[in-house]
Amino acid sequence: MSSGAAYLNRLNDGRRVWLDGAIVPDIRSHPAFQGTVRSVAAILDLQDDTDTESQVTFTTDTGGKANIAYLIPETKEDLFRRSRGLQVWSDATFGVMSRVGGFYRTQLTAWHISRHLIEREQPYFPQKIADYYAFVRDNDLLVTAAGHDPQIDRTKLAHELGDLYTAVRIVRETQEGIVVRGAKMIATGAPYMDEIIVSPHSKKTGDEQRYAVMFAVPASHPGVHLICRESFASQQKDDHPLSSRFDEMDAVLVFDDALIPWERVFIKDDPEAIWHIRSDRFGRALSLHENIVRLASKLEFTAAVGTELAYSIGITPFAHVQEKLAELYYQLESIRALLLSAEHQATLHPLGVWEPALEPIITAKNLGNRFYPRALEILQQLSGAGMLQVPSTIAELNGPLGSQLQKVYRGADRGSEERVKLLKLSWDLVGSRLGARHELYERFYAGDPVRTYAGQYADYDKQPLLEKAARRSG
Amino acid sequence: MSSGAAYLNRLNDGRRVWLDGAIVPDIRSHPAFQGTVRSVAAILDLQDDTDTESQVTFTTDTGGKANIAYLIPETKEDLFRRSRGLQVWSDATFGVMSRVGGFYRTQLTAWHISRHLIEREQPYFPQKIADYYAFVRDNDLLVTAAGHDPQIDRTKLAHELGDLYTAVRIVRETQEGIVVRGAKMIATGAPYMDEIIVSPHSKKTGDEQRYAVMFAVPASHPGVHLICRESFASQQKDDHPLSSRFDEMDAVLVFDDALIPWERVFIKDDPEAIWHIRSDRFGRALSLHENIVRLASKLEFTAAVGTELAYSIGITPFAHVQEKLAELYYQLESIRALLLSAEHQATLHPLGVWEPALEPIITAKNLGNRFYPRALEILQQLSGAGMLQVPSTIAELNGPLGSQLQKVYRGADRGSEERVKLLKLSWDLVGSRLGARHELYERFYAGDPVRTYAGQYADYDKQPLLEKAARRSG
Amino acid sequence: MSSGAAYLNRLNDGRRVWLDGAIVPDIRSHPAFQGTVRSVAAILDLQDDTDTESQVTFTTDTGGKANIAYLIPETKEDLFRRSRGLQVWSDATFGVMSRVGGFYRTQLTAWHISRHLIEREQPYFPQKIADYYAFVRDNDLLVTAAGHDPQIDRTKLAHELGDLYTAVRIVRETQEGIVVRGAKMIATGAPYMDEIIVSPHSKKTGDEQRYAVMFAVPASHPGVHLICRESFASQQKDDHPLSSRFDEMDAVLVFDDALIPWERVFIKDDPEAIWHIRSDRFGRALSLHENIVRLASKLEFTAAVGTELAYSIGITPFAHVQEKLAELYYQLESIRALLLSAEHQATLHPLGVWEPALEPIITAKNLGNRFYPRALEILQQLSGAGMLQVPSTIAELNGPLGSQLQKVYRGADRGSEERVKLLKLSWDLVGSRLGARHELYERFYAGDPVRTYAGQYADYDKQPLLEKAARRSG
Amino acid sequence: MSSGAAYLNRLNDGRRVWLDGAIVPDIRSHPAFQGTVRSVAAILDLQDDTDTESQVTFTTDTGGKANIAYLIPETKEDLFRRSRGLQVWSDATFGVMSRVGGFYRTQLTAWHISRHLIEREQPYFPQKIADYYAFVRDNDLLVTAAGHDPQIDRTKLAHELGDLYTAVRIVRETQEGIVVRGAKMIATGAPYMDEIIVSPHSKKTGDEQRYAVMFAVPASHPGVHLICRESFASQQKDDHPLSSRFDEMDAVLVFDDALIPWERVFIKDDPEAIWHIRSDRFGRALSLHENIVRLASKLEFTAAVGTELAYSIGITPFAHVQEKLAELYYQLESIRALLLSAEHQATLHPLGVWEPALEPIITAKNLGNRFYPRALEILQQLSGAGMLQVPSTIAELNGPLGSQLQKVYRGADRGSEERVKLLKLSWDLVGSRLGARHELYERFYAGDPVRTYAGQYADYDKQPLLEKAARRSG
Repeated sequence: MSSGAAYLNRLNDGRRVWLDGAIVPDIRSHPAFQGTVRSVAAILDLQDDTDTESQVTFTTDTGGKANIAYLIPETKEDLFRRSRGLQVWSDATFGVMSRVGGFYRTQLTAWHISRHLIEREQPYFPQKIADYYAFVRDNDLLVTAAGHDPQIDRTKLAHELGDLYTAVRIVRETQEGIVVRGAKMIATGAPYMDEIIVSPHSKKTGDEQRYAVMFAVPASHPGVHLICRESFASQQKDDHPLSSRFDEMDAVLVFDDALIPWERVFIKDDPEAIWHIRSDRFGRALSLHENIVRLASKLEFTAAVGTELAYSIGITPFAHVQEKLAELYYQLESIRALLLSAEHQATLHPLGVWEPALEPIITAKNLGNRFYPRALEILQQLSGAGMLQVPSTIAELNGPLGSQLQKVYRGADRGSEERVKLLKLSWDLVGSRLGARHELYERFYAGDPVRTYAGQYADYDKQPLLEKAARRSG
Repeated sequence: MSSGAAYLNRLNDGRRVWLDGAIVPDIRSHPAFQGTVRSVAAILDLQDDTDTESQVTFTTDTGGKANIAYLIPETKEDLFRRSRGLQVWSDATFGVMSRVGGFYRTQLTAWHISRHLIEREQPYFPQKIADYYAFVRDNDLLVTAAGHDPQIDRTKLAHELGDLYTAVRIVRETQEGIVVRGAKMIATGAPYMDEIIVSPHSKKTGDEQRYAVMFAVPASHPGVHLICRESFASQQKDDHPLSSRFDEMDAVLVFDDALIPWERVFIKDDPEAIWHIRSDRFGRALSLHENIVRLASKLEFTAAVGTELAYSIGITPFAHVQEKLAELYYQLESIRALLLSAEHQATLHPLGVWEPALEPIITAKNLGNRFYPRALEILQQLSGAGMLQVPSTIAELNGPLGSQLQKVYRGADRGSEERVKLLKLSWDLVGSRLGARHELYERFYAGDPVRTYAGQYADYDKQPLLEKAARRSG
Repeated sequence: MSSGAAYLNRLNDGRRVWLDGAIVPDIRSHPAFQGTVRSVAAILDLQDDTDTESQVTFTTDTGGKANIAYLIPETKEDLFRRSRGLQVWSDATFGVMSRVGGFYRTQLTAWHISRHLIEREQPYFPQKIADYYAFVRDNDLLVTAAGHDPQIDRTKLAHELGDLYTAVRIVRETQEGIVVRGAKMIATGAPYMDEIIVSPHSKKTGDEQRYAVMFAVPASHPGVHLICRESFASQQKDDHPLSSRFDEMDAVLVFDDALIPWERVFIKDDPEAIWHIRSDRFGRALSLHENIVRLASKLEFTAAVGTELAYSIGITPFAHVQEKLAELYYQLESIRALLLSAEHQATLHPLGVWEPALEPIITAKNLGNRFYPRALEILQQLSGAGMLQVPSTIAELNGPLGSQLQKVYRGADRGSEERVKLLKLSWDLVGSRLGARHELYERFYAGDPVRTYAGQYADYDKQPLLEKAARRSG
Repeated sequence: MSSGAAYLNRLNDGRRVWLDGAIVPDIRSHPAFQGTVRSVAAILDLQDDTDTESQVTFTTDTGGKANIAYLIPETKEDLFRRSRGLQVWSDATFGVMSRVGGFYRTQLTAWHISRHLIEREQPYFPQKIADYYAFVRDNDLLVTAAGHDPQIDRTKLAHELGDLYTAVRIVRETQEGIVVRGAKMIATGAPYMDEIIVSPHSKKTGDEQRYAVMFAVPASHPGVHLICRESFASQQKDDHPLSSRFDEMDAVLVFDDALIPWERVFIKDDPEAIWHIRSDRFGRALSLHENIVRLASKLEFTAAVGTELAYSIGITPFAHVQEKLAELYYQLESIRALLLSAEHQATLHPLGVWEPALEPIITAKNLGNRFYPRALEILQQLSGAGMLQVPSTIAELNGPLGSQLQKVYRGADRGSEERVKLLKLSWDLVGSRLGARHELYERFYAGDPVRTYAGQYADYDKQPLLEKAARRSG
């Protein structure tokens, strides 16, 4: 059975995916999910395709085949190999799907590598994480995570909101495990995933100890509800080439006194330990490296679409158009260079693994959240109202008024069908709800830019700068 | 019968509105149109509502009641009166609907006022326009226009594209009128309008004489097809408060050898005359004045939504939030000031009418196409991913998981229902296809910014500047 | 004796102006100051020039002639009259000199009007301020102010810095008055002024009571030292048309146990009273109104220079040039509109004076600190390296290589001398230290933008916005 | 004799450097030049300093020692070696001096490598360039260039300006060589250089054949005049640490019927050949590579200064400060990554040399002309008016008011002297004429951004983009 077929089988597991007021009986056949389910299965099948298998998988120490996101970078070449493999993966969705892309699988791999970091505080952590890593890797499982508290009042802590259980909190402990109640946001892609890891993404205070818990559950775990936002999926493949295939979905997790078995409770009542492992430099470097690979795919795609838009209406001779296209190209080129630079400047970590250079990666992330919205703006500027002028469906080009519409919609370099397809694609990227969600995603997936910039400041090694500048008085 | 009821009656006229491959039998009952139809009718009823009647209408010279957009500004106070009336009109849709707002009704009023401008070249123009003006005014008709040629190859003129009839062109003349063939873009709001005025928006060359025609047709005129883009309308009033009511629709007009009767053929075979009347300063000033009234409504709305978003999650104490809100306020205030300034600086035109000062209006327009996209960006920054975290329908707050969702979604200053409504509204403004269309609209409705800036340069009276600066050497 | 001549006489008063390590014996004949002294005298003479006298002065209640900045706006027309008069004043220096322009004279006028505001806390304030207002008005005195504490450590208050006397603080009180020690920044233009008003510009805490003092001193007061920054003045009138005439100078005031007589001690030991009078809405509105008049002068000048630069090398046909010039024009037009709008929307204050609308003024200020740096950037973009290519002195055009240089430096529309003069002027505006100081000034004169934006947020009347938007659910 | 001493000797050569209307007798002792002369000599001495000699020089095939800029990259390691050596060179002036940095020496090295490219059209070119390369390399000569025509009217070609000899043009040919007349702009650094290469920087048309000449002259060549802009040099080392040492000077070259001997006339009457060699991809890649090394030095310096400014007044805890510092860091990091990426992706050229990847280099250049002005803006925002509040000379801290000034000027983390030095340095970078010239330089050195962006568009290999995106329909 192919990886994709196995995935489709696994989805029949009774997960509680709520949409439009009810639980979706089977996401494989529901219009809001089926297109994306098919895409995920197809991407997983890249692991079995002879053209791509060697790129997107590797052989584990026990002789099995595993996804490249689980590869431990024991040599510098392993980093390049991860990069190439993850790129194939990202290119398959033009960077539009982030969680299938391997972000949390990579994060888990990093936690596994660094697992002894917090063993003093959390003695069972190393073994539990190692087991969990082997489990998801060897079963080819897809993993996402959720970690933000509900956005109720940003001036208050979780326990100051009147109700103790808005954010996920331990209710009680039993012999089998812990019982948790409350919500976590946003589990991107959760309805399509096998596993969800839950832990606070911001640092918890000493007063919030019972919120400081890190655990994993299958998406179908009893007591776990996945509250979906409205679906952005379309059934019209021709008219909405992205929305019909790549609506990753975002879900709020509600834990209704869910029992988490001990082997999946990685950390408990320990804000420091969670912060320690989450802010571990190696883990950030490896997981964000995956992210930048995906960002490059996406910027490559927007650059291509922008270029085609310009060709299709014959505007490339204009200086202001060339300037805008050049900007799309240099966006892509600078992210690519930062990625390459992170890889070439990787260093050998005391744990015997290779760590991509963090600074170029953080730079790419912070540039990225300015680049992507600007790329969309450029696509708008290149197309003008053109994206709005298309017939409601491509099929109309062959309908009763077809012969007239074909004349009206042809482009400078292509026929009407190719041109309308391009405009539909552009609109799906720029003007659809999926597109708008992606703009928000790129701005915020790594946290509020105000904080991610502060983070770059805090992390930056300023000493070399200052020393060199100090020679000025020499 | 109220104005709205009369409007609903008129819509039953066999117009050929194409959507999804077929003609819509009756837009009043079709899901893609009915919400907006209802909104238009309700807005028209403002003309009969005792609270607003005196603001949005005036008494014509023949004693009838007419929409304020048709008011000829014979006194300076008339300009202020127009401004107040058009504001009521715009506020009713938060500035989201532009053509109901009165842009082309105002343009027509201006052409009527300036009708003798081209009587040497087009001797029948003055009488035809005067009759048409009286006709639409006295019958309370809604008017839009279309003027762009299909966007095929911007390096070529209309007659150089191989096929002579991509853009609207005269095929032949008969005793009854002219027969036209070809397309015009974009007739914003056309499916909802009574009348459509067609004429080239850019200057035609001498080689394109047969394209230089200006005429008007009812939306239901034989041989006229309205090709709609995909519908952005929603049926869910609670979840999509804007998309369910204000999808103005954009349509491409296809003329299939339509016969235009002589009384509606205002200009023929005369690029100069069309350009002359279209670029008349008075007409630009009066019609763009209406536009800026609407822009102010819209910016007021985005400022309000931004303010509420910030209140609702308790982020107003943060400096970067205050900075962003201040920017929304100064956007609004500067547009308001420009509007007021245009009115206070109005001058008496030789024709005996008052002309709003053009420079502040052009400034407002050019600032506006930078302000609005920035306002949307600020809304994204204030909300972060919050807009994506809402349940798929508001109804879920009272569904099976209601009690838990109500806890999760309440805000710092309001309950969950009010908060989710606000987030749904914000998303409808920022993330829906309607919202994306509005971003494009504000950027481009007045033409490519590259050209509108060039226009401001060309028009600007530089002499006073230069003279004052010349004193530097003194 | 003319106003200017009287001014020159007054300057011979023993003021302690420190430059390059020594006290300047007489600024009227010192190269760093004499050019500006001449400019100030010339501007004052506008009060006696028959062309301008009626615009820049008014007749006081005692029949004397006084500068327009001292006019109390008892009618709405008085506001327009102030505006016109202050514009003449600002235009005389192209907006480049801010303190001669009347900012603090206006502020003092406002304090005089609002003097009873704090009479409960500071019973002598009303009479002292009234006397001082009459004194400076009737003697045609120039006034500046200083109010910032030394910028040592922004995380600490004045009394937490180890030394109590870095910022101005009361040392002791005597029968004659108070003795103060410490520094205040930045007294813009102080070496050229008659009077300096000292008071904290930010709100002092209860712990800083002895710093909460407001007083006035002549610039030559014993114990007062004016520590100048380096001079930006040039002796070359032809080559540096601005720097040779308009270096306003900035000075740090050092009080070396200076005795301030009681009649000039307006407020003492009272943080609240100082904050109350300083933040009084009327005072802010009237004084910032003067500022916006000056800002408009400056933007008019940059727009003129940009236009000439473009003409002089024949680049106006290029679209990107037109776009940049249009931006200069709309900067100017929007500030002008905000100014006009503030005047037209002025309201009658309970004190019987007319208050310009604050919101447009604050908007103009906050737009202004973004506009001016952008205007300079546009001048750079228009000129390119041209500003750097000029001979070191204009005289060289008539020197040994003159005939060759005249050929090389002529422009598209003017001879070499006119063109080089224009380039020299542009460089003086953009590239000189005076120019760089002005960029800093426009960014910061009204405080750190982070705070001025927060201020606009705090002040803004949000209620009308929210009420109108609330109708959305209707 | 050290390299620096040899340089000083060579300067005594009768060059006609015009400043303030006269020829400077000896730039080594003239206040406008001596500081920079000393800096250049000191930098040249790095070639003899045991710490740096091996980095900044290499051994030629004839066993001599030569500057690293002349190294032919025969291995990939040679590229890294060039990069390291040029960085030492750039760091010595914090990237502030561009022509000493090796730009044109590198360009010449590239022309030498590619010399056979145009041998069909210009058969003597290969040998002449090879000889010239060996000559300058082996004599350790400094080289600059000039290539822009006088900026008279950008809508006209050189021969359409009435006078044929505004731009350099051949007057006649003799047995000894060609006689040229006219001007070229801007020979950056020319007064300090040994050699100047002259050729048109933009493509000449067939009608401008006599302008299409490429030749080299010593800076002291008879008939060659160097017309300097005004000097930005300061004599105050402490108060102007950059302006006192690094005023590179810009000069317009005027050729007064200068005779250029045949061996230095590389190309003649051949627009195509000049364009061919100038636009050769390898030459652009190698010479711009040098530029990016320098840009990184400069951004490192601005980042260091920004960091120190923030530390010195205790503002690093503020989020908006951290955001700005982060931006300085990511500017630097992205340029570094692009540089590294260009080196790692270098390819073997058919000529047997290694070519740095051009795309990352062009990207760095185009980002750079947006980054540097923004870096200066950030320095302004961090310092606020602080940079203006310093005493006119540092010496005043130890003058009559010293004890009081020392209190006022100390910082959060340093004493008053260190703090004032930092502020003086910042102001020299941001507010001096040298600083303003650098902003212009970074914006324009590589040409008008409108054109450099168009260039990136034109060069970009779009095929891979389009092919990958084409799979979307698959």
